[in-house]
Amino acid sequence: MSSTPAYDVLCAAHLRLYRFSHLGSITRWDQETHMPHKGNEARAAALAELAALMHRLSTEPQLRERIDRAEQEPLDEAQRANLREIRREWRHANALPEALVQARSLASSRCEHAWRAQRQANDWTGFLVGFREVLRIAREEAALLSQQQGVSKYEALLDRFEPGMTCAEVDRVFGDLKQWLPGLVRQAQERQAREVVLAPVGPFATPSQVLLCQRVTGLLGFDFEAGRLDVSTHPFSGGVPEDVRLTTRYREDEYQQSLMGTIHETGHGRYEQNRPRELLGQPVSEARSMAIHESQSLAFEMQLGRSRGFAGLLAPLLAEQFGPQPAFEAGNLYRLSTRVKPGLIRVDADEATYPAHVILRYEIERALIEGEIEPEDIPALWDEKMLALLGHDTRGNFSDRPMQDVHWPAGMFGYFPCYTLGAMYAAQWFAAMRRATPDLDARIAQGDLAPVFAWLRDNIWLQASRWTTEELAIRASGEPLNPAHFRAHLERRYLA
Amino acid sequence: MSSTPAYDVLCAAHLRLYRFSHLGSITRWDQETHMPHKGNEARAAALAELAALMHRLSTEPQLRERIDRAEQEPLDEAQRANLREIRREWRHANALPEALVQARSLASSRCEHAWRAQRQANDWTGFLVGFREVLRIAREEAALLSQQQGVSKYEALLDRFEPGMTCAEVDRVFGDLKQWLPGLVRQAQERQAREVVLAPVGPFATPSQVLLCQRVTGLLGFDFEAGRLDVSTHPFSGGVPEDVRLTTRYREDEYQQSLMGTIHETGHGRYEQNRPRELLGQPVSEARSMAIHESQSLAFEMQLGRSRGFAGLLAPLLAEQFGPQPAFEAGNLYRLSTRVKPGLIRVDADEATYPAHVILRYEIERALIEGEIEPEDIPALWDEKMLALLGHDTRGNFSDRPMQDVHWPAGMFGYFPCYTLGAMYAAQWFAAMRRATPDLDARIAQGDLAPVFAWLRDNIWLQASRWTTEELAIRASGEPLNPAHFRAHLERRYLA
Repeated sequence: MSSTPAYDVLCAAHLRLYRFSHLGSITRWDQETHMPHKGNEARAAALAELAALMHRLSTEPQLRERIDRAEQEPLDEAQRANLREIRREWRHANALPEALVQARSLASSRCEHAWRAQRQANDWTGFLVGFREVLRIAREEAALLSQQQGVSKYEALLDRFEPGMTCAEVDRVFGDLKQWLPGLVRQAQERQAREVVLAPVGPFATPSQVLLCQRVTGLLGFDFEAGRLDVSTHPFSGGVPEDVRLTTRYREDEYQQSLMGTIHETGHGRYEQNRPRELLGQPVSEARSMAIHESQSLAFEMQLGRSRGFAGLLAPLLAEQFGPQPAFEAGNLYRLSTRVKPGLIRVDADEATYPAHVILRYEIERALIEGEIEPEDIPALWDEKMLALLGHDTRGNFSDRPMQDVHWPAGMFGYFPCYTLGAMYAAQWFAAMRRATPDLDARIAQGDLAPVFAWLRDNIWLQASRWTTEELAIRASGEPLNPAHFRAHLERRYLA
Repeated sequence: MSSTPAYDVLCAAHLRLYRFSHLGSITRWDQETHMPHKGNEARAAALAELAALMHRLSTEPQLRERIDRAEQEPLDEAQRANLREIRREWRHANALPEALVQARSLASSRCEHAWRAQRQANDWTGFLVGFREVLRIAREEAALLSQQQGVSKYEALLDRFEPGMTCAEVDRVFGDLKQWLPGLVRQAQERQAREVVLAPVGPFATPSQVLLCQRVTGLLGFDFEAGRLDVSTHPFSGGVPEDVRLTTRYREDEYQQSLMGTIHETGHGRYEQNRPRELLGQPVSEARSMAIHESQSLAFEMQLGRSRGFAGLLAPLLAEQFGPQPAFEAGNLYRLSTRVKPGLIRVDADEATYPAHVILRYEIERALIEGEIEPEDIPALWDEKMLALLGHDTRGNFSDRPMQDVHWPAGMFGYFPCYTLGAMYAAQWFAAMRRATPDLDARIAQGDLAPVFAWLRDNIWLQASRWTTEELAIRASGEPLNPAHFRAHLERRYLA
């Protein structure tokens, strides 16, 4: 018998898993950014093989006994937290058979790849072929996880992205939102109807947008020696903490989509780049959850990126890249980035209407997973909910409605609520930051972003998965998730 | 007991290995083309973990018995060939311990990554630090393979790239070359001294070079829906058969380096893209050997790419990208691409002096592996051999001498001879092609490259590893390797 502590053996196993996941992350990045069309079947097979391998390593029979044994070993607090996360991952993996894991990887690779062309072609019927397979597997997965965990099917999927979050809590928070948000959107639009806003005059050459995005990403502290910014159909942050791959997309008639997308992904990227180095490879070093992850992207994009002070920082950078024009005056930029206007596309939505996009998707995907509706039912439900939530008529093509996001073709059911939970946490973090640094907004306006980064680094990034989400929120801000901060933020910015 | 034939079980295992190698190929391509500096340690660890995994799967104890059992099963000829290759791979893997395989991967990732900056900085002393570790591991590997196979250490490494090739054969062929090549180089230079050659006038904008290279790669039949052309420090062909990744490099004062490099890599790429589809994943579908691989790149770059007919095809493409100029006249382009001039850099060498670069490296790396010399001895030996082979004084920096190639930092000892063996095979293939298609050169001049591609596809690409190299050569051209074709080709092109 070896005398190596069981905990150390577990850590070595997780370090190996971490290294294998590196290969998956980089090849998935390549799949989205560089891979030519005919490469997808081989890529899908390779990624599915990797998923099966990692599942096998995560469910080795001796792990149960090792985890139990490690519980009895003398561990410090960080090690205990790591063991808690190891057990959590182990439970999740053991609920699923290898064949399902491999089939899930294959189906999502295929559906997501086909979706890119299908979205362009508005081919909803073609899309449904691959999507039905993705949904079938997700329902099977949800049923197995639900059995194991004794929660509803959708809640079991939600838990993959947001550990500990319940549907009851999401319903409570979103239910409250649905009460006051439509009114706030209306009021904001009424106030803004009187504003004069100059539209920037294009075209905006792609190379200049690339430079602008790189400048802003650098200003936001992203380390380009440990990451990149490239182009993909749907912006994302991928790669590995040592080499973070951000993407955005460019169109020459406007620059806001690429710029705001880049700022959003940079928030994800800085979280990843600043996960605790000494623990990399261990589950406790992983980002806490996807709501916390989105709280970083939305802290960057919404709280900071659409603030009055930040508009002043952007003004000279825009003039530098595109030449001076009246629309680039700081006050006008602020009015532009806080303009409230119901629209079709989630990622282009303003801060006030964004939650409506999320609530709609949450309600639809939950019903899909629980088997209450079928994919054919989505378009009509979509229009109905958009009308109810935003008074917005969305009837039209499929590309700009249910086919606009990568999440469903990729099988990521349960992810969407994290955006709005993240927006709420982001407001909560900024409230805490302002208590710690009362002149925060003045400092941002002067280009001194250090207090923002230092607070996020110490309270979020370096904490990784050391605590549960609730503990993390309490330690960082003195309270668990409190949506009142989000409402207060919107009222201050849009109605004050 | 399962009743599945042992052969089928072996095939399934190799299909898994193939899928894992896909992840390695793509992430190595990324390492050379996109990865930022700080990503390398994590990448190196991930690739080493993959190497260890694949080694473990390749040395599973039950494989020996399965291979023996499969020998007794009723197999067709292609299956027999596959089993022969499976056994060969199994023997190689079993000679090495997992720790060595993992250390080899790690050391070469590190040395190769450091080399890129060290070459720029002419930092030979810094280079030696990583290189000594790569060499130490290569010597250990050579000793183990040599013991297993009963051949010399260097020959054991050579066999990884060129199965069945012996040092005695290389010595015989290279010894013969050393007799007549210096004289041919001198005579060619004397004849060319009287020629008028116009140098193209630059600069040559990189975007135009990119377009030129893409046009030529397309003309050469490369499928861009199943591959890409990117930029790297040292041009290579990587990726997977379903998604071939070619690279080149651009400098704006001339275009020949990027163009000829691209043509070279396209030869590799078409071989890979045309490996037999129905056998992909099995060892019998792999490229036969690296000499045969280089026979494709050099058939494209030297035989076809520097022919008089091809110069006529390039002329309008050059004028299209860079505007017309007298140097782009077809006859002048031919004189340019056949200009014989001893130089420092192997990949920029003309066809006649190229073998001298290879012989020099062969002699040095063989002595290194056999322990007869140490890395410190390389620079002096380099100058001495260049003087003897080409009458060329190479004293100067290290970057343009022993640090110019990726092979040694990557631990690829035993590869270099394949270039000149490949050049010889390429001449042999073109001689066979001309027997089959007597008007071949006229057809090339008319832009009809189909007879070249059809011959290579039927005789080389689709044959993959079905036969030993010698059998392949005999089936394709009626005889085993015969260097006389190479000499005849050079004499016809440079002295006639």
